[in-house]
Amino acid sequence: MHPHPPLDPADWDEFRALGKQMIDDIADHLSGIRERPVWQQVPEEVAASFRTGLPEEGRPMAEVYEEYRRTIQPYPRGNIHPRFWGWANGSGVPVAAYGDLLASVLNCTLGSGGNAAMMVERQVIDWIGEALGWPQAGSGLLTSGASMGQVTALAAARAARAPEFREAGAAGSGVRFTVYGSTETHHSVDKAVELLGIGGRFFRRVPVDSDFRVDVAALRAAIRADRTAGLTPLCVVGNAGTVNTGAVDPLADLLAVAREEGLWYHVDGAFGAFARLLPSHRPLLEGLTEADSLVLDLHKWLYMPFDVSCLLTRRDGDLETAFRSGADYISKTKQGPAAFPLAFSDRGVEQSRRFRALKVWFALKTYGIRAFADSIAGNVAQVAHLVTLVEAAEDLELAARSDLNVACFRYVWPGATPEALDRVNRAVLDRLQTDGTAMPSHTVLGGRFVLRVANNNHRSTTADFDHLVTEVRRWGAVYAAAETGR
Amino acid sequence: MHPHPPLDPADWDEFRALGKQMIDDIADHLSGIRERPVWQQVPEEVAASFRTGLPEEGRPMAEVYEEYRRTIQPYPRGNIHPRFWGWANGSGVPVAAYGDLLASVLNCTLGSGGNAAMMVERQVIDWIGEALGWPQAGSGLLTSGASMGQVTALAAARAARAPEFREAGAAGSGVRFTVYGSTETHHSVDKAVELLGIGGRFFRRVPVDSDFRVDVAALRAAIRADRTAGLTPLCVVGNAGTVNTGAVDPLADLLAVAREEGLWYHVDGAFGAFARLLPSHRPLLEGLTEADSLVLDLHKWLYMPFDVSCLLTRRDGDLETAFRSGADYISKTKQGPAAFPLAFSDRGVEQSRRFRALKVWFALKTYGIRAFADSIAGNVAQVAHLVTLVEAAEDLELAARSDLNVACFRYVWPGATPEALDRVNRAVLDRLQTDGTAMPSHTVLGGRFVLRVANNNHRSTTADFDHLVTEVRRWGAVYAAAETGR
Ligand SMILES: Cc1ncc(COP(=O)(O)O)c(C=O)c1O
Ligand SMILES: Cc1ncc(COP(=O)(O)O)c(C=O)c1O
Repeated sequence: MHPHPPLDPADWDEFRALGKQMIDDIADHLSGIRERPVWQQVPEEVAASFRTGLPEEGRPMAEVYEEYRRTIQPYPRGNIHPRFWGWANGSGVPVAAYGDLLASVLNCTLGSGGNAAMMVERQVIDWIGEALGWPQAGSGLLTSGASMGQVTALAAARAARAPEFREAGAAGSGVRFTVYGSTETHHSVDKAVELLGIGGRFFRRVPVDSDFRVDVAALRAAIRADRTAGLTPLCVVGNAGTVNTGAVDPLADLLAVAREEGLWYHVDGAFGAFARLLPSHRPLLEGLTEADSLVLDLHKWLYMPFDVSCLLTRRDGDLETAFRSGADYISKTKQGPAAFPLAFSDRGVEQSRRFRALKVWFALKTYGIRAFADSIAGNVAQVAHLVTLVEAAEDLELAARSDLNVACFRYVWPGATPEALDRVNRAVLDRLQTDGTAMPSHTVLGGRFVLRVANNNHRSTTADFDHLVTEVRRWGAVYAAAETGR
Repeated sequence: MHPHPPLDPADWDEFRALGKQMIDDIADHLSGIRERPVWQQVPEEVAASFRTGLPEEGRPMAEVYEEYRRTIQPYPRGNIHPRFWGWANGSGVPVAAYGDLLASVLNCTLGSGGNAAMMVERQVIDWIGEALGWPQAGSGLLTSGASMGQVTALAAARAARAPEFREAGAAGSGVRFTVYGSTETHHSVDKAVELLGIGGRFFRRVPVDSDFRVDVAALRAAIRADRTAGLTPLCVVGNAGTVNTGAVDPLADLLAVAREEGLWYHVDGAFGAFARLLPSHRPLLEGLTEADSLVLDLHKWLYMPFDVSCLLTRRDGDLETAFRSGADYISKTKQGPAAFPLAFSDRGVEQSRRFRALKVWFALKTYGIRAFADSIAGNVAQVAHLVTLVEAAEDLELAARSDLNVACFRYVWPGATPEALDRVNRAVLDRLQTDGTAMPSHTVLGGRFVLRVANNNHRSTTADFDHLVTEVRRWGAVYAAAETGR
């Protein structure tokens, strides 16, 4: 009467056996991660396997898994390794991956509806707010990343300021908005401003001081000039941890400007906001919890597997003002599965929404927030240790330090030309990366190519940074010698 | 020298044991899913457990898992059950959940970079294109859902038409765009138009015929009127399967209009585009593969766990024109981990991006596209069977049928008032849902409240629809009797 669904396992025992094999392999892989290279080049014959056409017929699932083990597992991005500090990626807490497995099995979609998954997402948002000291009257949403968070926050800012804008648009409303942030603001804010049709050049890039913190006087002047020109200042973006150097803007000063000028205050705390968990860093982040909106990436400095980010807003309802929709086919009922006091799909772009909250719920219950705070404090201490090593070495030059988890530096030698320095530091980086020794990334500061460490890694230790410094100096000397012909 | 990372399992054997326990429980749960209620109300004492504060300290992971089993697993949305046909949710192929587990363990982020994960996403996009017959010269991106796909596609449309718009915005460019689609278009298109600052009222809702297909003559007239009024028509949106009734617009006619008028042609094929896999349905979807962009949700009618959707574009480079960014900290290198011919983060909003492709790769390799096509064909046949049953029953009335997987109907009796019909059908729906018998959803068609079935369920069988009809008639009779006092 009910034939077996052909896309369910034909043999559940085979499914069980494979799953258990995976679990063993995962434990082996993660517990032995330190012994592996951070990264390795995909060999051409493996790369070729990813250019084969659409499979017409199936194969045993164990065989597909073997292919995964051979072609994918050895050639990842590398960010689960203890010596990966590139870009701003997190390392991934293993138990959270179990949460993700369960989320995919239960397969809830979190747009709306009365079920436990909706309650879990609400709870996780509340927990993040509680961890930061966010006002209880606020609201929030889990998004795929800070990039989506910026889009969502700016849309909320616009809707709060001009509710008619949703219907009337830029053409119908005639308002010309401007947004403000430092030159060090992450490009996801530029992209959000562009996407919303505000226009990239109406994102005013305000200069920074020598510590890469926004110049508040210049910000005030920019707002004044725009008002005089007939534009409508909409939003100030503060950085709690810039991507380049981990700089924290004077958040309380920005708050004051935003309040005086009647602007929305958005803080990009993609990784830096987590420093609020450390009593030592509360003064540095003063003003953060007064923002109108804040994004923070749980897949960065809370070490969650991709993707999960949290957008918090100061006032309940602001997201709904920007995103609520009233289509018949998703209308609520008084009871049953379509009844719930809130719809996350009314708080942002996404209608179907993965059960992102479950991994967070799982990991926070398993370890407690204190263990996360300890790990974050450890990352800060490790970077401070790195800075000490760099400052102590005469062949290394510190390019930027932060109170958080970012540091930039480079290899130097007396009499080097700027071009030679860039070449040698590129070569060093390339060497570390292709050898799989360690994975800083790079950036350009004041025209100089520098190595950049962003430590969102719960597996890193102080010794890992000792190793990094040793290797940079070793290879720096080799390449510098080649440059200078000595 | 390297202390054990406190957010890794203190005891890997405990981690293994728990993982294997989960695998067994998952197999039990999924293989026994038919015996469970589709949905059940979260009891108040369970709901209360989701209002507890942030955990300070940790607990054994097995205990947290037990809590999951007690408070979350029994109270999901329900879409993995064979008799769930609400909204447009997919059912979730089990082996794909394994892919998601591995994705969370390996934890790659897919913005850019040289690694196997990037190659897998490129391959999966190519496969989807191949399955549909999409032009090979095209491009694409996996997104979290069709909602994000619409946003991304419309941004690409705008950038293709007016590349200066990114910088200049609506204020600086002065262009006033309009977008066209039928009144049945999914509200995610409205939301996208609003988000982009085009303005909801510049989304022109064109009337439909009695089969809920867009009126092409009315579309032409609307475009003409807008041009006369000095507006700039930007994009035509065609529906390959409307959310309400599964209607397919005359896609080839829309294509002709778009080409004649020089507009971008976007098709929302969130679920319906998968009917391209069936030779029987190719004529119905004629014109689909000529679109400038197409969204289709792999988490709908390809039964993938949330979230994964695919956006395809006709021309390589169109997404980059809208989204490419050149920040120093993500600039490419010639070789190593930052070298790869493309950056997915340059094709859309997201910078951090979950490894969504892996589950698709896993499932397509395991079953082959043919098994998916068979399951899709089965869903079409099941809904056709439902329609036959509804038409044969004098106490049921068909409100809408489609050539795809959607049908709307209601319980009726002679002499019933419109209000009584609405009340009774609401009561029937509520009864089915709260009993956990079956889960259609509802919509409103021509002012009438109707039950709506959207079958994206690889576990459904014909007998499940027999059961649905039996239960609707049984409860319809009960509530109608209560109404009429008989
Ligand atoms: C400061 C900052 N903001 C925003 C982002 C973007 O976040 P996501 O990649 O989660 O979209 C990043 C990512 O590196 C970041 O470092
Ligand atoms: C026709 C149609 N378009 C778009 C969407 C939105 O898709 P998603 O929920 O993946 O964002 C849906 C969802 O039901 C749909 O049915």
